[in-house]
Amino acid sequence: MIKVSIIGSGNVATHFYKAFAESDTVKVIQVYARNDKNLKHFKGKTNTCSRLEDLEEVDVLIIAIKDDAVNGIIEKLKNRKEVIAHTSGSVPMSNLASKNGVFYPLQTFSKDTAVDFETIPLCLEASDKESYTVLEKLASTISDKVFPISSEQRKSLHLSAVFVCNFTNHLYQIGEELCKQNEVPFEILHALITETSRKATENSPKDVQTGPAIRNDEKTLASHLNQLTNEKYSEIYKLLTQSIQTTYGKKL
Amino acid sequence: MIKVSIIGSGNVATHFYKAFAESDTVKVIQVYARNDKNLKHFKGKTNTCSRLEDLEEVDVLIIAIKDDAVNGIIEKLKNRKEVIAHTSGSVPMSNLASKNGVFYPLQTFSKDTAVDFETIPLCLEASDKESYTVLEKLASTISDKVFPISSEQRKSLHLSAVFVCNFTNHLYQIGEELCKQNEVPFEILHALITETSRKATENSPKDVQTGPAIRNDEKTLASHLNQLTNEKYSEIYKLLTQSIQTTYGKKL
Repeated sequence: MIKVSIIGSGNVATHFYKAFAESDTVKVIQVYARNDKNLKHFKGKTNTCSRLEDLEEVDVLIIAIKDDAVNGIIEKLKNRKEVIAHTSGSVPMSNLASKNGVFYPLQTFSKDTAVDFETIPLCLEASDKESYTVLEKLASTISDKVFPISSEQRKSLHLSAVFVCNFTNHLYQIGEELCKQNEVPFEILHALITETSRKATENSPKDVQTGPAIRNDEKTLASHLNQLTNEKYSEIYKLLTQSIQTTYGKKL
Repeated sequence: MIKVSIIGSGNVATHFYKAFAESDTVKVIQVYARNDKNLKHFKGKTNTCSRLEDLEEVDVLIIAIKDDAVNGIIEKLKNRKEVIAHTSGSVPMSNLASKNGVFYPLQTFSKDTAVDFETIPLCLEASDKESYTVLEKLASTISDKVFPISSEQRKSLHLSAVFVCNFTNHLYQIGEELCKQNEVPFEILHALITETSRKATENSPKDVQTGPAIRNDEKTLASHLNQLTNEKYSEIYKLLTQSIQTTYGKKL
């Protein structure tokens, strides 16, 4: 049985709590939040506390709080004996505690959507072999996809995630806005969105690029730019077209 | 029984041929390609021809060829009696023939991937009510998602499709490249890609934007820009970040 407590009460903390609670080999001892009000959806399910000194000794403390608060809280916990692992994509592994670790789930979490942790990659790092083994054991109880990832690699993964998730969602939002302007249901684009992401995960995205930019279809490119009344969206259209053409060695 | 012939032998033509061939209420009479060599994968399955004058009379001629060749071929077919419908997203409906139409499948097709037409939206337009009815009957035999879409609306759909499909795939490709540079398997990002597209089809993308841009997380934004050595990718990072911040009224 691996004993875990969770520092934090937001999206990521809640999803981890649920995943651990369902596992037969993990026991969640406590959930901590500085503000007791934020603990109300944990009460009755597990023990909670809002003072760090009330945390019992466990095997792993999972820190799932805002990126910029991570090191402050580790500083306060640095004399503890358990592995202290944060869950942030962009914060390097701490060297403050005696056993430092990272337990980074590479996924976008929504408060209300259930998460199937089995399919979510967990990127692990630890300051020592023993701590890594504990984290790996813990990770394997909830996910089939566990990867050893260094802080340097995690930095690049986090950056890549911004491109494939945050920026991609912005392009979806632009598509939706263009549809609305012309009274076309955005739903018509759903099948295309789903197929585009499926293709990119079953192939190298580089091998499946399509569209007017890679075909260097000047007529369509000009007509599209002509349609775009939002200047920012025109700039995005031009820049991404250029970038595709540079990638594939088409003329600019 | 609806009698159809297909002009063209590429991806779209092939996928339509297969979908029609499987339908009990459609009969594909002929497939045409100017170059007989391109017809070899149809031979033995259906009749083929490489001279327009050999096309028999049918109910609908489906034109699935390159965008810039569409009007040239309709010009040559303009005296025929059947509905002449092209399948292009970016070409307005012709007014050359007596019965003009559009039969636009909003999807990205790969030569080797089977397509489930039932889930693919078909955007229809016709010059007259009777022709629309024929196209609608034909569309309903292969798809559950049939929409009447004007040429003007189709133009905006095609533009939106470039954002949500072609540009999105380019962002995936950038993500893959960044992973490779740091010896991280791109596979780690697959779950995120799938979840991001799922979220955007079950919500308005505008409501589910996440990431450092919308949080105005300056430290992460600066660190990401610092990591990007490819100048074009830095420009894309800056522009999309700005565009997200403009959309949500964050400071620039």
